[in-house]
Amino acid sequence: MLPINDTTVMTEGGAVDTLALWQRISELEARVAQLESSPAQDTEDRLAMVVFSGDLDKAIAAFIIATGAVAMGLEVSMFFTFWGLSIVRKKQHKVYAGKNLLEKGFTAALPGDSLGMGISQMNFFGAGSKVIRKLMRDHEVTSLEEMMSLAQEFGVRLVACDMSRELLGIREEELMDGMEAGGVATFIGDANRAKITLFV
Amino acid sequence: MLPINDTTVMTEGGAVDTLALWQRISELEARVAQLESSPAQDTEDRLAMVVFSGDLDKAIAAFIIATGAVAMGLEVSMFFTFWGLSIVRKKQHKVYAGKNLLEKGFTAALPGDSLGMGISQMNFFGAGSKVIRKLMRDHEVTSLEEMMSLAQEFGVRLVACDMSRELLGIREEELMDGMEAGGVATFIGDANRAKITLFV
Amino acid sequence: MLPINDTTVMTEGGAVDTLALWQRISELEARVAQLESSPAQDTEDRLAMVVFSGDLDKAIAAFIIATGAVAMGLEVSMFFTFWGLSIVRKKQHKVYAGKNLLEKGFTAALPGDSLGMGISQMNFFGAGSKVIRKLMRDHEVTSLEEMMSLAQEFGVRLVACDMSRELLGIREEELMDGMEAGGVATFIGDANRAKITLFV
Repeated sequence: MLPINDTTVMTEGGAVDTLALWQRISELEARVAQLESSPAQDTEDRLAMVVFSGDLDKAIAAFIIATGAVAMGLEVSMFFTFWGLSIVRKKQHKVYAGKNLLEKGFTAALPGDSLGMGISQMNFFGAGSKVIRKLMRDHEVTSLEEMMSLAQEFGVRLVACDMSRELLGIREEELMDGMEAGGVATFIGDANRAKITLFV
Repeated sequence: MLPINDTTVMTEGGAVDTLALWQRISELEARVAQLESSPAQDTEDRLAMVVFSGDLDKAIAAFIIATGAVAMGLEVSMFFTFWGLSIVRKKQHKVYAGKNLLEKGFTAALPGDSLGMGISQMNFFGAGSKVIRKLMRDHEVTSLEEMMSLAQEFGVRLVACDMSRELLGIREEELMDGMEAGGVATFIGDANRAKITLFV
Repeated sequence: MLPINDTTVMTEGGAVDTLALWQRISELEARVAQLESSPAQDTEDRLAMVVFSGDLDKAIAAFIIATGAVAMGLEVSMFFTFWGLSIVRKKQHKVYAGKNLLEKGFTAALPGDSLGMGISQMNFFGAGSKVIRKLMRDHEVTSLEEMMSLAQEFGVRLVACDMSRELLGIREEELMDGMEAGGVATFIGDANRAKITLFV
């Protein structure tokens, strides 16, 4: 009578074999436990990005991607390292006091803030950046600095790499407010649960 | 008699406790539903790439990776933005008419097509590109333009970033046939289900 | 008596309906099988990185990320291609014999090893690299070459791209010991099961 053709669950009399059911459930529990503990389960709707470059055009691309991802419901973490630290410096806030010669040299040579950054191609000694910024205004595209404010407002995690900050002689107080200090472990931790990982 | 040592499924009389089975099944259903709705389940064998650079060598690397991924059964999406748009311009098809001064400037300064692109290191005013292209012919490596045709044939999704196209004053008709127009949301949408994400 | 309110498992008499249990188990088995065969299940705690750039600063960033990831328990694969091959050349081991003119030219123009590499910004004809290396010593940061040894010791998979090695006229014997030869398929294979993928 029963529409069962899987013989493992039938006793000879035709009734459902509850012992077989018990065995199948035990197997299922083991398989589900394995799935639950698989690395895939740590994955989140998250984007983790290393921002290594200090070029204005790449910084713009990075923040367009970051704010776009937030708008689509992803968590976003940005790790600023090496030249990328120029992007997140306070405006007009270079500090020379108490730095050694090399650090002072870097402080002088590096852009003081995002407004001083060049572009990766066709920079022409800074003219290229001015053109890009003008084009963005003309086309009513949100400026880099506005996108950075938006990112902070939207809860993007902004982390400054401690080691490269110290290497380049940049003080924590020279960075924008709201920055978090971190190291490579902070990046790997977020990246290993992120669906999108990028090096810019 | 029964080889069951899990007491939760045994009644006092030694028979399988079907109520306990029912409870374990209900728990399993909840756990499986949670696994099915986890972010990991959106993941596909897919590669999503931002092509930001307009350097010949990086474009070659991007298309070697893209066509290699397709050959291995992955879906591939490429998002051309900023200087990367130079790669996907129609050959010898610069348009000046109806553009303002800045747009005309960019049209003149940017490579007209992939054949005019330089390389990221050792370019020596274009000699480097010629060397790379000659070396590829000598070693019978598929040229960039052939790889691009292959990519289109193989169903690679080629998306041109609307915003940067407009910023740089490039018209849609200046791009290769078969390009799709899109924005950052197009990239995030594909990247958030891709196993491989790259920024080139 | 039984605290069951799911009618599908109750017979009219109030006992657990084992046929219904059997059906729910069969459904669960199908759903679990689907989860087990989903692309997400290939995902590992793994980082796969293309190292395209031959800049010292990017190489340092790449190896900081790679050794950091290993320290956190991830498997790591690094694919050296194009200019990135300079990083993994044996120290002071340029080979000219048996190369054609173009290959000899590349051999002369490319850095002979990681010690000869410049940096991506503020290189000032090599002074920038020296400054970075001095700063790293001053701050007791592990040097690039030490990080490379550590990476090998920790079991990082180091793959040299065959095709670009041949294009640039670099012989296998010019590369560090312990390098693996591979192609784009080697990268895609590892990247498609890696949680973190980067293009440096």
